Amino acid sequence: MYNYKIILAYDGTRYRGWQKQKNTDATIQGKLEAVLERAMGYPVEVIGSGRTDAGVHAKGQAANFYLKESFLEKELLELFLRYLPEDIAVLSVESVPERFHSRFSSLEKYYCYRIYTGRVPNVFERKYSYALFLDERSSKNPLNMEAMRKAAGYLKGTKDFTSFCGNKHLKKSAVRSMYEVHVEKTKDEIRIHYRGDGFLQNMARIMTGTIIETGQGKRKPEEILEILEAKNRELAGYTAPPHGLTLMGVKFE
Amino acid sequence: MYNYKIILAYDGTRYRGWQKQKNTDATIQGKLEAVLERAMGYPVEVIGSGRTDAGVHAKGQAANFYLKESFLEKELLELFLRYLPEDIAVLSVESVPERFHSRFSSLEKYYCYRIYTGRVPNVFERKYSYALFLDERSSKNPLNMEAMRKAAGYLKGTKDFTSFCGNKHLKKSAVRSMYEVHVEKTKDEIRIHYRGDGFLQNMARIMTGTIIETGQGKRKPEEILEILEAKNRELAGYTAPPHGLTLMGVKFE
Repeated sequence: MYNYKIILAYDGTRYRGWQKQKNTDATIQGKLEAVLERAMGYPVEVIGSGRTDAGVHAKGQAANFYLKESFLEKELLELFLRYLPEDIAVLSVESVPERFHSRFSSLEKYYCYRIYTGRVPNVFERKYSYALFLDERSSKNPLNMEAMRKAAGYLKGTKDFTSFCGNKHLKKSAVRSMYEVHVEKTKDEIRIHYRGDGFLQNMARIMTGTIIETGQGKRKPEEILEILEAKNRELAGYTAPPHGLTLMGVKFE
Repeated sequence: MYNYKIILAYDGTRYRGWQKQKNTDATIQGKLEAVLERAMGYPVEVIGSGRTDAGVHAKGQAANFYLKESFLEKELLELFLRYLPEDIAVLSVESVPERFHSRFSSLEKYYCYRIYTGRVPNVFERKYSYALFLDERSSKNPLNMEAMRKAAGYLKGTKDFTSFCGNKHLKKSAVRSMYEVHVEKTKDEIRIHYRGDGFLQNMARIMTGTIIETGQGKRKPEEILEILEAKNRELAGYTAPPHGLTLMGVKFE
């Protein structure tokens, strides 16, 4: 068996997320597997570094798959270029050792959440940045950056993130390490950069919702400590919408 | 009557262009007029600085309309913000003298055409930049920038642009002044900037198609002179697709 690693980008707008599902072919994994199966004549499983939620985008998702025969990297690149829909693009193909596994071999993931805060809508970024301008304007209170930065600080480190997990039936450990939770302000946008060894279901979006509520003055930054302690999803903030989130990259051993 | 000028942006992907049509409400002008008519209780004509083609975008289109009563600029901004679809945004509203007419008072328009030349698709810009990478790769000849710049130079100045007009039944003068036709190269993109006192139907797209063919070696830059001279649309290049084109701004007296 020959193992290939791919890096890919996708506009998640039209998809029900990464993971293949029974009743729809509108998933990223499903689209990739369909291209490979048609070309190879046998089913091929594409293993992602992680499952992005429905509507979440990627600029540097990683995945791998095994083929029965050997191919040139450029042959596979050509295949994807030709048969994938226009909102999914394989950026590179690399032949890797058989033991490489895009989920188990990954060390770090980098997500970016974009919040658009301009006074008037940005029609060209509307699908990739979460527009908070309406709430902001009506409340007359712009987001408090200092509070958001403090909240972000409390999320850094190695902790049990049960309260920030959208899956109520999580059986495995919810301990994860956040190496970076950084709130950046540009003219019309707030970007939150998350780097960590792994992310639970909806975790980046729930952290974002909680940081936003802190910025709106609905909660205090220090509450984050209590929320983490309680291990109760009900105490954290709302799940920010998926379209503001992009998986930027995955680091490997 | 009170005259209001607006500056607006739109993602042209879903629309049949600026101009209102009988059998569809999928036009920019139609959407704006519908919002105003519903709010005012009487029909309002929205006059654009020019008609963008179906699929062409705008970051700085200008328009004006007359209302029977006086409104605060922010009241009208609020109205548009609330009722326009998410791919059309009014960026500013200004009360202007009654004689102001967004078409007749305009002195200069600025269009930008984006050509994406990266090796792999850019899924996030696919609707706003014309991807030429496939042709490029298969021909193994990247676009010749020097030839494109020469061709662009021949299009500058005050000339009869009949050969670059998509409307075969044009009755008025086809003389226009191009103040700037500039070809810019970035890492993965070629951008052609057009500034002129007016543009004929499809003109920016036909100039672009002709410049591209020059870059591909299909014609020589000097041919532009013969094409202009002939006043025959058949001699110019193809009409580049609309989604690469954006109306960037309009200058007034």
